[in-house]
Amino acid sequence: MNASKERANRLVGQRASRHVVIIGGGFGGLACAIELGNAPDTDVTVIDRRNHNLFQPLLYQVATAALSPADIAEPIRKTLARFKNTNMIMAEVVGVDPPRHSVVLSDGGSLSYDKLVIATGSEYNYFGHEGWRTFAPGLKSIHEARQIRHRLLLAFERADRAKSETEKQAFLTSIVIGGGPTGVEMAGAISELGRFMISRDFRNLQPDNLRVILVEAGPRILAAFPEHLSEYARSYLEKIGVEVRTATRVLDIREEGAEIEGEFVPAGSIIWGAGVKASPAHSWLRIAGVAGGRIPVDEYLRVQGLDDIYAIGDTSAIAGADGKFLPGLAQVAKQQGIYLGRNLRSGKAVSGFKFKNRGNTAVIGRNAAVFDFGKWTMKGRAAWLLWALVHVYLLINFEKRLLVAVQWIGRYLTRQRGARIIDETAEETDVARHITAAGGAGKTSADRPRS
Amino acid sequence: MNASKERANRLVGQRASRHVVIIGGGFGGLACAIELGNAPDTDVTVIDRRNHNLFQPLLYQVATAALSPADIAEPIRKTLARFKNTNMIMAEVVGVDPPRHSVVLSDGGSLSYDKLVIATGSEYNYFGHEGWRTFAPGLKSIHEARQIRHRLLLAFERADRAKSETEKQAFLTSIVIGGGPTGVEMAGAISELGRFMISRDFRNLQPDNLRVILVEAGPRILAAFPEHLSEYARSYLEKIGVEVRTATRVLDIREEGAEIEGEFVPAGSIIWGAGVKASPAHSWLRIAGVAGGRIPVDEYLRVQGLDDIYAIGDTSAIAGADGKFLPGLAQVAKQQGIYLGRNLRSGKAVSGFKFKNRGNTAVIGRNAAVFDFGKWTMKGRAAWLLWALVHVYLLINFEKRLLVAVQWIGRYLTRQRGARIIDETAEETDVARHITAAGGAGKTSADRPRS
Repeated sequence: MNASKERANRLVGQRASRHVVIIGGGFGGLACAIELGNAPDTDVTVIDRRNHNLFQPLLYQVATAALSPADIAEPIRKTLARFKNTNMIMAEVVGVDPPRHSVVLSDGGSLSYDKLVIATGSEYNYFGHEGWRTFAPGLKSIHEARQIRHRLLLAFERADRAKSETEKQAFLTSIVIGGGPTGVEMAGAISELGRFMISRDFRNLQPDNLRVILVEAGPRILAAFPEHLSEYARSYLEKIGVEVRTATRVLDIREEGAEIEGEFVPAGSIIWGAGVKASPAHSWLRIAGVAGGRIPVDEYLRVQGLDDIYAIGDTSAIAGADGKFLPGLAQVAKQQGIYLGRNLRSGKAVSGFKFKNRGNTAVIGRNAAVFDFGKWTMKGRAAWLLWALVHVYLLINFEKRLLVAVQWIGRYLTRQRGARIIDETAEETDVARHITAAGGAGKTSADRPRS
Repeated sequence: MNASKERANRLVGQRASRHVVIIGGGFGGLACAIELGNAPDTDVTVIDRRNHNLFQPLLYQVATAALSPADIAEPIRKTLARFKNTNMIMAEVVGVDPPRHSVVLSDGGSLSYDKLVIATGSEYNYFGHEGWRTFAPGLKSIHEARQIRHRLLLAFERADRAKSETEKQAFLTSIVIGGGPTGVEMAGAISELGRFMISRDFRNLQPDNLRVILVEAGPRILAAFPEHLSEYARSYLEKIGVEVRTATRVLDIREEGAEIEGEFVPAGSIIWGAGVKASPAHSWLRIAGVAGGRIPVDEYLRVQGLDDIYAIGDTSAIAGADGKFLPGLAQVAKQQGIYLGRNLRSGKAVSGFKFKNRGNTAVIGRNAAVFDFGKWTMKGRAAWLLWALVHVYLLINFEKRLLVAVQWIGRYLTRQRGARIIDETAEETDVARHITAAGGAGKTSADRPRS
């Protein structure tokens, strides 16, 4: 597609569809594309590096062998197949040229737009310690979830074959860094998975040797939730065998373990959930990011100072009713995508974007979750049931099958984990055999909550 | 475990359980282990490089995005969990020391046995062209199935972004090498997947550009089946758009395509199914393999000339009623595992092993399969229905869920493929960027049939 030619057509008054380009096929980008589905005189192109949209709230269940990747991922093409005016490109964006109204791709191609929606999400922030990423993957993609699952399961096999008690203890130790929802979910799920596997599958291992350490730099876990829910989560985690260490910093991460304030703890698996930053989209626009690289937008989600460019979801920054930036939640991204899609479709925006809080949740274990609806809260088994119901509903809405619901119920009844497969990929060789020489304290502030 | 100490105990008459070691947790090894489950005074250890048993007959459905890996794989520990006397070790065997009754592991450990069962299966044979493996993976493990799926799906995305018609045609071309059941299943499934995806998901691609070439060196595909079934398979494949090229040799395989007798065909994905050889277990025993490295055994499945060592399944060679070696089929391995397990349990073998042919099958497409029961045959939709019934039954027996059956039925009704996920792993970087300089003709004889 030739940007200048197309715009020339438009300038000489030739009637042409306008072209809305959406970068990012996550909750926000796809909600926007769906709102624009079959809109008259409008072509929509979604660009994504991956071919699928991911139901991230359940990614921790892939990492802990409860679900398969395909259970929570949906090809973007499939989602958009019902619209005649939408298209998808699997490509990597490397820049935006606002004066030319053009998006630059890594393969050298470019794509012209009339309206551009940036919905590129967020990624894990290692606060300058990029070398840690290799040893402590975060949980953002299917690849990382599979990597974590692989390491978790392999650690048990290695513990089983360990030559000493020290080695066995190391392989049975997991360290989860960051006490936000992801960290809490992972710590709880690892503890439950570990105890189940040891008691059922590993005759030579003892459940008491399982050690799951949740490290949080701040004074409490689930910092975005009311304090009594943090306390509930902590006591529940401790009950199921997780060591919760708040106000504690991780100083170094190596292949064999992590240095946690004065103590080196050997570990078979380390998971990073300690902070996110926005995608680098702000640099494409050559503007300064705010609050971790987010693109500031006005109440209509327009990027200030640039024509026809919008930003939504985790990569954008807009103040909520309380004056603080809205959190990086799926529900925020989705509401923004719907709002913007409707505006772009109608060509006008009657009022600014208002976030409606649907409740913030974190699941702690097989029978425990917390919910924060602002005015009231819930915790325990009832909250878990609500969490399960909400997520089954959301998944079905996500065009995803009753099947996952069936699997859940089956698993709940049998306590089985269906996806305990170690595929002998080269994943372990992904682990580069070097770490950054840079030392210093790693920030382990809570990650932003997500719904 | 200390081999000499344990055997010393036995020699001084101290009553100890005897130890049966089974190398390989496939159909044969596990059937043997299950027969020995809870046998008195018997300890059983299964050694496998992977933590799971794979239902290989459906692996092609993982490769073509119809099933997830976890749907057809079962952790070996889970299968054996109900027996108190069985254990599993995830480790790699590098040798056997018959005089010491000991198995040597790659991690330097060893394991003593009283009875040793070798059930290490087979692997793809590249007939000396090991460099081809990188560009044309076979279909033996989950890793390879995912690799093939990844390449297939990525090729469509690349075709969609192709800069020329030539490039587009190359990405829409798949070459399947070997006209045995695996090759036929893959060619049929790729053609169906491709047409479905193009018609539904890719507006810029035309179904007519899809090209699936099935190359077979011998005079006909499905050479192990009666001739009229080969002909049926050929005409069905051609009907669904597969080019079947028999009596044709592949001379070279490169990253960009394959040289097929006088013509270089650029292709987005190449799949190898052209021949198998036995695992290298015969070299552990320092005996000469027969018929592609298989270990010759007597009618009691004993390795000739070695005490207390047995071999079963694809890695062993035993003549059937017709004097020819039994084929490398799951049903042969399983029947041998059961036979041997019973003999080892009772301590006596009343009669030699007799293979009962349950029928040989290959599936060609969504509504077509062939069955060969020796005395009579079946083909077409009825054969497909029987194939589906048999495999649902076998899968459930494999301790695998009704769920897969549910998925199948759902997919059959909706023509959906649930697992069309490209996870952005480093898999493509697995592809080493070199090919062997060695040229010469590649043998592309039919692979051995499997049930």
